[in-house]
Amino acid sequence: MKIADRIEVAMTAAIQRGQGGVAPAKLAAALGYAVTPGGARIRPTILMSVAMACGDDRTMLTDAAAVALELMHCASLVHDDLPCFDDADLRRGKPAVHRAFSEPLAVLAGDSLIIMAFQVLTAAAADVPVRALGLIEILGERSGMPFGICAGQGWESETNIDLSAYHQAKTGALFIAATQMGAVAAGQDAEPWEELGARLGEAFQVADDLRDALCDEATLGKPAGQDDLHGRPNAVASFGVRGAVQRFDDILGGAISSIPACPGEAALAQMVRAYADKLVPAGARNRPTVAGE
Amino acid sequence: MKIADRIEVAMTAAIQRGQGGVAPAKLAAALGYAVTPGGARIRPTILMSVAMACGDDRTMLTDAAAVALELMHCASLVHDDLPCFDDADLRRGKPAVHRAFSEPLAVLAGDSLIIMAFQVLTAAAADVPVRALGLIEILGERSGMPFGICAGQGWESETNIDLSAYHQAKTGALFIAATQMGAVAAGQDAEPWEELGARLGEAFQVADDLRDALCDEATLGKPAGQDDLHGRPNAVASFGVRGAVQRFDDILGGAISSIPACPGEAALAQMVRAYADKLVPAGARNRPTVAGE
Repeated sequence: MKIADRIEVAMTAAIQRGQGGVAPAKLAAALGYAVTPGGARIRPTILMSVAMACGDDRTMLTDAAAVALELMHCASLVHDDLPCFDDADLRRGKPAVHRAFSEPLAVLAGDSLIIMAFQVLTAAAADVPVRALGLIEILGERSGMPFGICAGQGWESETNIDLSAYHQAKTGALFIAATQMGAVAAGQDAEPWEELGARLGEAFQVADDLRDALCDEATLGKPAGQDDLHGRPNAVASFGVRGAVQRFDDILGGAISSIPACPGEAALAQMVRAYADKLVPAGARNRPTVAGE
Repeated sequence: MKIADRIEVAMTAAIQRGQGGVAPAKLAAALGYAVTPGGARIRPTILMSVAMACGDDRTMLTDAAAVALELMHCASLVHDDLPCFDDADLRRGKPAVHRAFSEPLAVLAGDSLIIMAFQVLTAAAADVPVRALGLIEILGERSGMPFGICAGQGWESETNIDLSAYHQAKTGALFIAATQMGAVAAGQDAEPWEELGARLGEAFQVADDLRDALCDEATLGKPAGQDDLHGRPNAVASFGVRGAVQRFDDILGGAISSIPACPGEAALAQMVRAYADKLVPAGARNRPTVAGE
């Protein structure tokens, strides 16, 4: 089965388990709504690619790890879109959960998805309890306080922001979780895989800045030009479009050279290159030089 | 060490781990704020009492289980107090988290506490991975969808409420988690302990209704008379004060007779009786009969 299909099949099964039995219908519907359509599923794709590069000898555990990571990511989107944060109308081309359902249901859907992420991992733990616990540990560390995406979002309430800690937690954390959980699901150590995750996270951030500057709302599935609008620091403002593309390529090069020795090293490098081509819109690379860039 | 002291020492250590390192200061402070003062710590007290009745041969795991359960409970209080739910000003006699900090920080503090609950359990898993996974599984099941406290809160957004599923999920779930996690932390099966948890949850609900009707705001640490005010179904409205006290005693009797055979059975029964005396205010038992009751 292709990676994209493995992810969708496993996601659907997990959500159906969460909706099953005598459950409140609206919240059950909100869970499914919050995780579809899937978009690029970048984090679970990286996770599975790393697991496959490491042998992927426990496919059910790999599937569970990929789902757990994506559920946590979706939960963070649902909560980040709430009125008290971004107050977003749109997400992935349709109304955000709090608009489509209600604010209470968006809070509860996010909470349920966070919890479900851990449930999915215990359900796949049977013959590999130590690996499963390793996965739960990484997911917790990269999601919560003091280093995870909650911390990343929390920095936005501070007057004095530690920018390095902020970016590492806000964007980097779940990419590091992706590479490390992929390795651990396949029975390998987590530590050597941290750098690859961190660099992929940086590259994603630069690509996100490029897309925000260059794409329209229909392509993004959410409002464009938000970085400029809110005066947020971003790679395009700092380096211009061509500079940002160069920076993206440099980071990706570093990412590829950081891949630890493993059976599928070459294939993984190829995957990273394909990921790069997907992330940066063709228009950005071929764009004629603009004065001042 | 006394149970109450064990709980506070372990809670403090867990929160400090979550606050440590380079973390956003306000969110770090909100975590500590959200879990203190502790109130009765009823759920972790039940959990530890059951673990001790079962031998408590892994005290660190028991401590972690108690903390995990209380963190999940505190997270639910923080989110339930949000403006889109109860919009509560006060909790445990001081401003609710979203009033003392902000709404974004209350959302994030709740999220972080949920995640921390699972982190605490992995951190104590070292030599007992299967027990730890069992604890994570129970905590997830009784917190998320479709049967946990998220489901319970989710029922409040439905037009047609399944009252039995609602009460079981909203109040019962974490009491069942308490008895089952106590047993599993001490190496016993979870299943025989479900009934005790369910009955303690019912008793707690009746006691809560009695306190809401009979106590003042200073005693409760939150506004009194809310059930009558909002026309919520409650035991005092249904049975009167004396009827509700009688019902409370009946449920507790059932709880005691449901205690599975274990080394500390007698001591546990004694604990349940002490719990009962604490829950129902003396004034309620001794209250003169009022016409119409």
